[in-house]
Amino acid sequence: MKAMDSNSTNHVILTGDRPTGPLHLGHYVGSLRQRERLQHGNRQFCIIADMQALTDNARNPEKIRGNVLEVAFDYLAVGLDPRITTIFIQSLVPELAELTMYYLNLVTVARLQRNPTVKEEIKLRSFSGGVPAGFLCYPVSQAADITAFKADLVPVGSDQLPMIEQSTEIVRAFNRIYNRQVLVEPKPLLSSVPRLPGTDGRGKMSKSLGNAIYLGDGADAVRDKVKKMYTDPGHLRPEDPGTVEGNPVFSYLDAFDPDQAGLEAMKAHYREGGLGDMAVKRRLLDVLLPELETIRERRRDFARDPAQVMAMLREGSRTARAVAAQTLEEVRQAMRLDYFPEE
Amino acid sequence: MKAMDSNSTNHVILTGDRPTGPLHLGHYVGSLRQRERLQHGNRQFCIIADMQALTDNARNPEKIRGNVLEVAFDYLAVGLDPRITTIFIQSLVPELAELTMYYLNLVTVARLQRNPTVKEEIKLRSFSGGVPAGFLCYPVSQAADITAFKADLVPVGSDQLPMIEQSTEIVRAFNRIYNRQVLVEPKPLLSSVPRLPGTDGRGKMSKSLGNAIYLGDGADAVRDKVKKMYTDPGHLRPEDPGTVEGNPVFSYLDAFDPDQAGLEAMKAHYREGGLGDMAVKRRLLDVLLPELETIRERRRDFARDPAQVMAMLREGSRTARAVAAQTLEEVRQAMRLDYFPEE
Repeated sequence: MKAMDSNSTNHVILTGDRPTGPLHLGHYVGSLRQRERLQHGNRQFCIIADMQALTDNARNPEKIRGNVLEVAFDYLAVGLDPRITTIFIQSLVPELAELTMYYLNLVTVARLQRNPTVKEEIKLRSFSGGVPAGFLCYPVSQAADITAFKADLVPVGSDQLPMIEQSTEIVRAFNRIYNRQVLVEPKPLLSSVPRLPGTDGRGKMSKSLGNAIYLGDGADAVRDKVKKMYTDPGHLRPEDPGTVEGNPVFSYLDAFDPDQAGLEAMKAHYREGGLGDMAVKRRLLDVLLPELETIRERRRDFARDPAQVMAMLREGSRTARAVAAQTLEEVRQAMRLDYFPEE
Repeated sequence: MKAMDSNSTNHVILTGDRPTGPLHLGHYVGSLRQRERLQHGNRQFCIIADMQALTDNARNPEKIRGNVLEVAFDYLAVGLDPRITTIFIQSLVPELAELTMYYLNLVTVARLQRNPTVKEEIKLRSFSGGVPAGFLCYPVSQAADITAFKADLVPVGSDQLPMIEQSTEIVRAFNRIYNRQVLVEPKPLLSSVPRLPGTDGRGKMSKSLGNAIYLGDGADAVRDKVKKMYTDPGHLRPEDPGTVEGNPVFSYLDAFDPDQAGLEAMKAHYREGGLGDMAVKRRLLDVLLPELETIRERRRDFARDPAQVMAMLREGSRTARAVAAQTLEEVRQAMRLDYFPEE
């Protein structure tokens, strides 16, 4: 599977998030910044995947409902422009459920159970009463999300590559069995940016670990989180030599400092000894706070008028629906389910 | 689980068939005759389950497409009246796919794998490449079919009871988790008629075993099939005593002979010896042919105008859709997915 270059244009792109919480710096660095760029020169669809979020949150629908708007605020705050990026709510495009039902017949249970991403996520979640069938099947639902828009490019982290593989298999099976080139094979667009660690330096940023800086966090909260950030535990006094690798403050600087030459010099100084953690964190706040302030202010403006943002989501969902309905029609034709072609 | 009495009225009934072949005497005796009665005094929905048929026929959609009309002809031929029974095509009611997606989150993979009916059917089918995910999940899709119409009564054979149990579990889980009495628990309506064996006496009538008499069969074909029917292999000469139990000719007479007293006398005679198989088969043809002729003639009339039957299916599907859409709206409200309640 060849990954695509992030500078390519004229692609149809499907991207999005599960509305299980507000978005954080990890999302921003890993995908949101890229989406803002990709929306120029490509046809980008951005899904707020409420149905997928319900596959492991069926008992907590309030959480999903509440976070749909939060995620939409985050999208608008980072500069996704609904005039060029179609932002939509998954459950408002029922064609995706129909496509999922048809695709489920082209994938075996064993194949889903072998999916490394799903296996890993099942382990992480340790479902108490057993794995919900919807959760096992969600890669098929993702294939519906991707193919409904005939997306040929899907930005993913490397841990999500098995999802693209699953979609590709479904596309190939469908086109072969029904003997028509209806569906389009998606290619992954791998992020060139390393994943941002949590402020505690322990793996990725996540809500449940309490190690995230949110796009909606105020300046004081950001200052506080940066001050408490994990650094090099062996770097006790400023004069001690410190380690840059695996030190989240430097990972953040890699992601945010526009002065890469200055950053290299600072890393050398830190390694050598004589540079205190407070000084490094100050630099991080100097570059981080202005960028976050722009986002936060925009977010606040949008959050003042949720009705307008809902109207945007409704409009986006209508646009998405029209595209998905066209694909579904072709799918049904290929499957000989076109009982009333004239309609 | 208490089964309901077949004389009850004022129920909402969901019944139907997978369009994998034309219907035969087994369907007629086991369910079609009953449906014709039940449509008076109840609100009956009759689903032609094309999506369910595709769960194990994804590679053969032509078969499903072709049999949708055959099944519709059979329904009309046995007297299902589209003015009082809503006959519809499953895939034309996309709300069923949406409900399925929501219900899949309320059922575990392990629970589906434990379903005795599904286990049995998987064994029968011996899927070469593995069990399709859609096939494992089809009990959830059936729960959507049943609950979309708030059916409280589902006519089933005893082998299908696990399906009703699965639906009941989903109804209870949904109403409990979302804290509203949205869905209605279905009760099974068990057929009081024993299952009609195939003409070869080997288990049930089925297309694949070549032991079926079809509702569309001509009189000559019926005569031929009855003449070749398996009887008691120990009953070599008319004067030998014969066995009635497990003798398909008598099973058919049980199902079709209106003169039950005469039939009892005939059975006694057969047991005693002195009654030849040809005489018994003649009696069967005497009662069977007129009943089948009425059906066959009606079937032929409907088959002459497939466009009109398709129009009936379209109309039925529209009616079914309106009911299912109302349920889906309530389901989405309960799940807090009512983003735009005013619409």
